[in-house]
Amino acid sequence: MNKQVKLSKRPFGMPDADTWTMETNPIPSPKDGEVLVKQEYISLDPAMRGWMNDAKSYIPPVQIGEVMRAGSIGTVIESKNSDFKVGDVLSGWGGVQQYIAANPAKAGFYKVDANLAPMPVYIGTLGMPGMTAYFGILEVGKIKEGDIVLVSGAAGAVGSVVGQIAKIKGCTVIGIAGGPEKCKYLTDTLGFDGAIDYKNDDVKKELRAHCPKGIDVYFDNVGGEILDHALARLRRDARVVICGAISQYNNKEAIKGPSNYLSLLVNRATMQGMVVMDYTKDFGAAAQNMGMWMAQGKLKSKEDIYEGIENFRPTFNRLFTGQKMGKLVLKVSE
Amino acid sequence: MNKQVKLSKRPFGMPDADTWTMETNPIPSPKDGEVLVKQEYISLDPAMRGWMNDAKSYIPPVQIGEVMRAGSIGTVIESKNSDFKVGDVLSGWGGVQQYIAANPAKAGFYKVDANLAPMPVYIGTLGMPGMTAYFGILEVGKIKEGDIVLVSGAAGAVGSVVGQIAKIKGCTVIGIAGGPEKCKYLTDTLGFDGAIDYKNDDVKKELRAHCPKGIDVYFDNVGGEILDHALARLRRDARVVICGAISQYNNKEAIKGPSNYLSLLVNRATMQGMVVMDYTKDFGAAAQNMGMWMAQGKLKSKEDIYEGIENFRPTFNRLFTGQKMGKLVLKVSE
Repeated sequence: MNKQVKLSKRPFGMPDADTWTMETNPIPSPKDGEVLVKQEYISLDPAMRGWMNDAKSYIPPVQIGEVMRAGSIGTVIESKNSDFKVGDVLSGWGGVQQYIAANPAKAGFYKVDANLAPMPVYIGTLGMPGMTAYFGILEVGKIKEGDIVLVSGAAGAVGSVVGQIAKIKGCTVIGIAGGPEKCKYLTDTLGFDGAIDYKNDDVKKELRAHCPKGIDVYFDNVGGEILDHALARLRRDARVVICGAISQYNNKEAIKGPSNYLSLLVNRATMQGMVVMDYTKDFGAAAQNMGMWMAQGKLKSKEDIYEGIENFRPTFNRLFTGQKMGKLVLKVSE
Repeated sequence: MNKQVKLSKRPFGMPDADTWTMETNPIPSPKDGEVLVKQEYISLDPAMRGWMNDAKSYIPPVQIGEVMRAGSIGTVIESKNSDFKVGDVLSGWGGVQQYIAANPAKAGFYKVDANLAPMPVYIGTLGMPGMTAYFGILEVGKIKEGDIVLVSGAAGAVGSVVGQIAKIKGCTVIGIAGGPEKCKYLTDTLGFDGAIDYKNDDVKKELRAHCPKGIDVYFDNVGGEILDHALARLRRDARVVICGAISQYNNKEAIKGPSNYLSLLVNRATMQGMVVMDYTKDFGAAAQNMGMWMAQGKLKSKEDIYEGIENFRPTFNRLFTGQKMGKLVLKVSE
């Protein structure tokens, strides 16, 4: 049987017991041109929260009654498409379910080499979060050697890669994360130059201490007050990459806009949004570079893997409480 | 005698009777290398409000006891500098006073040809406001033919030039201004494609009506709610030019940050600040272009001239109430 998690009600605030319904349906049969994929890992990402709102965005919202959209990776167990054979490992947009029968192109599935990296890495550092980090910090952040780079959500799937790439490129990197364990991970394992624990530190004060000369690039995953503190420390011609605003996604009131946005004026700075799908044609080259850095030990990947599709909601909500370490992944099949 | 307006107390909110003191002092004598300028017109600009705050910015704040900083234009009546002669008309940073003795270079004074345009135009369309408009919309806004351009403070010294340049460059231009008279001026005299009266219209609704396809470039002079409404209508790859935030300058509470800033993410848009002084080396070329457009009747300049240095404060405060039409100028000498 195929367990599927479907959106049943749009959440107001944090997703709760009414948000999704789990259904158990027969495993589908692939039609001509389709493959049947047994999904092993589901990617849990902050962006998914945005897809649940009935609002115009960069992709249509998930509809009520639809399988919850999610990145995934799994193995072909039946094929009616000559380009794919049983045993191929595919990563794409399989959604929160154990099996999917689909035309690979339509589901965004592409083949990966499971011998080169473990499956979860393909939905983490070598998947959307890694690509977001790569193009966000290089193309939008336009980092150059010597830049002072600040990244929030720094122990997360995107932030940890952002900071490591900035280090590889010769920047000074300060990360903001929640809790001493994550901060220690940033400095001791990932080689960040400094870390600020937003749950226990005075962020404003620590930013002044860690970035006395200010910030050239701020990569923002969180929004809210941290964005304001970062804006207050921009240097001339600074760049702010708006990748996400996880502190605001479950707001029941209006999003908190950055009061210090006039720092952009004073410092001739730029704040720019990004959506990773825009860079799809260059994913191959990015994966090559990142794979090389991983092989050289310069880019470390950490996944936090939970088990059981039944645990989807509480696991997903860890994104917002911060109770996870690295890329959040749900294992949905044996 | 020389009447001078000096900063006596930093305002909290709108400048009041305690903010400035008028002094009457002897007319200074120029030293070697200096000229004595009889100032005729003072430029009143929103940026001046920012210079009064004791905060790090793109230039140091005006100090208590100092003559209030302002752009100005006047005539040399005594010269101890061989590069300048009596009768030369100089524009620069003369401050709110009737006479100034200064080395022209140090006061930012440069010669202008008063036969080509009336003096007030040199502190308006051919001065800082015009330059701000020119470089802001062309270099930061990066307008191209066919763009849909929205400008706030559209009947003001900067906004009116922004809109006219955008029209010259083949854009569709919508202006936001306060009151039916200003809106009529935008459409009937300046040739804007549409105007929204923020004092009487529902801005959100009117924006939808005037810009059904959205906005490619928003040139913001006002901040606050109008910035939020504009953000909500950005098109893909839109550019937001942060030139000012006049609605917020007299706030007694924190500045209202733009709640809709995540529209930058969804639309891969850019919000960028600018300071006109950065473009000083290109002012000459800009003035040539703008002078040509003025001669061709494509660029109209409107000044609202009040009289008497005694009236500095109430005249200055018109910037914030909107009770003026075009570039606000104070005549300080006969």
